[in-house]
Amino acid sequence: MTNRQPQLADLFAARVRQVPAALYDLSQDSTLISFVYGYADPALFPGPDLLAATGALLDDDIDAALNYNHADPQLRELVAERLRRRGAPADAAQVLLGYGSSQLLGLVSQALIDPGDVILIEGPSFLGAVRLFTNAGARVVTVPVDQDGLDTDALEQRLRELAGQGLRPKFIYSIPTFQNPTGATLTLERRRRLVALAAEHGVLVIDDDAYGELRFEGAPLSPLAALDDQGWVLTLGTFSKILAPGLRLGWAWGHPEVVRRLEVLKLEGATSPLTTRLVTRFARGGRLDAHIQRLCAHYRHKRDVALAAVREHFPAGVRVLRPEGGFFLWCDLPPGLDSDTLLARAREHGAAFLPGTRCFADGQGHGAMRLAFSYLPEPQIREGIARLGRAMAGA
Amino acid sequence: MTNRQPQLADLFAARVRQVPAALYDLSQDSTLISFVYGYADPALFPGPDLLAATGALLDDDIDAALNYNHADPQLRELVAERLRRRGAPADAAQVLLGYGSSQLLGLVSQALIDPGDVILIEGPSFLGAVRLFTNAGARVVTVPVDQDGLDTDALEQRLRELAGQGLRPKFIYSIPTFQNPTGATLTLERRRRLVALAAEHGVLVIDDDAYGELRFEGAPLSPLAALDDQGWVLTLGTFSKILAPGLRLGWAWGHPEVVRRLEVLKLEGATSPLTTRLVTRFARGGRLDAHIQRLCAHYRHKRDVALAAVREHFPAGVRVLRPEGGFFLWCDLPPGLDSDTLLARAREHGAAFLPGTRCFADGQGHGAMRLAFSYLPEPQIREGIARLGRAMAGA
Repeated sequence: MTNRQPQLADLFAARVRQVPAALYDLSQDSTLISFVYGYADPALFPGPDLLAATGALLDDDIDAALNYNHADPQLRELVAERLRRRGAPADAAQVLLGYGSSQLLGLVSQALIDPGDVILIEGPSFLGAVRLFTNAGARVVTVPVDQDGLDTDALEQRLRELAGQGLRPKFIYSIPTFQNPTGATLTLERRRRLVALAAEHGVLVIDDDAYGELRFEGAPLSPLAALDDQGWVLTLGTFSKILAPGLRLGWAWGHPEVVRRLEVLKLEGATSPLTTRLVTRFARGGRLDAHIQRLCAHYRHKRDVALAAVREHFPAGVRVLRPEGGFFLWCDLPPGLDSDTLLARAREHGAAFLPGTRCFADGQGHGAMRLAFSYLPEPQIREGIARLGRAMAGA
Repeated sequence: MTNRQPQLADLFAARVRQVPAALYDLSQDSTLISFVYGYADPALFPGPDLLAATGALLDDDIDAALNYNHADPQLRELVAERLRRRGAPADAAQVLLGYGSSQLLGLVSQALIDPGDVILIEGPSFLGAVRLFTNAGARVVTVPVDQDGLDTDALEQRLRELAGQGLRPKFIYSIPTFQNPTGATLTLERRRRLVALAAEHGVLVIDDDAYGELRFEGAPLSPLAALDDQGWVLTLGTFSKILAPGLRLGWAWGHPEVVRRLEVLKLEGATSPLTTRLVTRFARGGRLDAHIQRLCAHYRHKRDVALAAVREHFPAGVRVLRPEGGFFLWCDLPPGLDSDTLLARAREHGAAFLPGTRCFADGQGHGAMRLAFSYLPEPQIREGIARLGRAMAGA
């Protein structure tokens, strides 16, 4: 003990002496038409069916749902079964349920990143995930994305450069299907190449498959894990996009040694006995499948409404990718239009979007914007894009 | 890159190269009458009221409950209001909601413990919490508990000894009210002394108040935080005992600098928008208070049934503390009876309990057992304790 008054701040562990800024700001300015966040469309929440499932669950399984208990093993089996249907050899024993894929991304960062470790991310990417990695001390190397997803030639070159410096990255964080933010889908050829490069260099691939089941058109492609027979792929998924974000249910599936570590780091133990059983009940009798079909039809229509409005209201120089699924449109702005400057002007016109700079970890993105078309009702999509068009015209 | 084949195991962060054993084993052997775990009594889960609250919530607030969102700010206010009623000057802004108090205990261990740090625990204590601390690398010093709770004379002595070695513990982990496992309640005089010692030595007190609202009789005592005007007390609570463990909802309240760090370490962000709003709805119009009154009456009766059965069936040498609330009876066994040996024999007789050794971090507890009377129906409490009595008689 020193003579000075003992200070509370002395008690903090080294990892939180400094407090990083909060990761998420969920607030929306309600006076704006906001394309900023990929919220789910509340008109599609299956309220009556969820209530019926709650009633049935409380009627005949109340002790399992409301007492101390494991997460529902049947939900792990449901996740595994859906993966098997898509060609991935999943076993429920290697499925870990968590509080949203954001929790699993947090556990991934704790399980794999020591300060200074290199990881590879797509540019652009989902910065909510990337910030978890950088807060854990990762050194982030960006690999470009084009209309066919991650550029695997560029990936190979980066991996060789890093190997030349004696650096082996811990993982490649990829969103291969309906990528966030571009909406691009990685081609089958590139999928094979990505998995082969990962195995060759001994680097994990984190396949963040948040949107994969929201395919509006086109033939489904194999999840990366279906192309991997050596356990280098960890797949993450969520019930946020196919059912409801507020349930906070996601999952990870991969090599048992990886999953075991995520589980140990999940200090609070089992994921909600109640909500895991609620989702299993809801899914019974093909109800989840039917619901996803309805979502796909609905979100496809919203995408088309948004694309038509973009063609009508945006200047000709704007290029937009037509995604085959997911929640986002990615627009390349005409030369000379900066996304941060445009956002300030757009807000004056009563609309908002996510500037491309918020999707890159390395300062890129000034020439692009992300529009989430998932949340807004159709008339607001049209009106909001018209406002953005006026903001661009007033440049 | 080396020449050898790259190994997956090389990728793990230092903190999980070695994987500690799983913390919880929730499985119960259904052929036994088990007094092992403090499960809630499922007969008391308010199924119809929870269903009605779910229906009302989905009817008029479905977007808030099921979309991406913060935890319900009204639930933070409810926690603060309940603390204020008990004399603690709580503000909702310093209440953090989490997935059970187990998550908050995990966050406490990450926020305060660097490997080798000293912490103080009660002996006996709740080892589920203590294992989180030891897994984080804490050096655990045990302070004894008697029928009046933590022995504050012994605490003072330990603090002075540690200070003499230049060691300042990070925190004292205490369960002052209806202690787990002893059921003892810390007297008001000792409460004042504990808080004063913490301030003097600059050591946090973690007040794990899991059972505090389940008081069967006697006058409520101030929570430790009500006696602390310097922010040295962090209070943890849970809806597990007063409503349902399966909801996975707990909370922490304390100094803003501590709470902020717990929040940052909670990597998955907001706690369930759905379940936090469900509990707020349920609690409306005094329903939570009425429910707790019903629980107290019911668990008091179970305690009395268990105490009567102990008097009837256990040998005279067994001493049992009569708790004024909570879930547990703590029994000191007659000399010569070892709790681990007795457990093996009890299982042959078709009953099980938690041996005292599972409640100490330092090898004590051979002469004691914990009986959870919360879960079992009355006839099983009687029959189970009769079986334990026969196991003791056959010693």
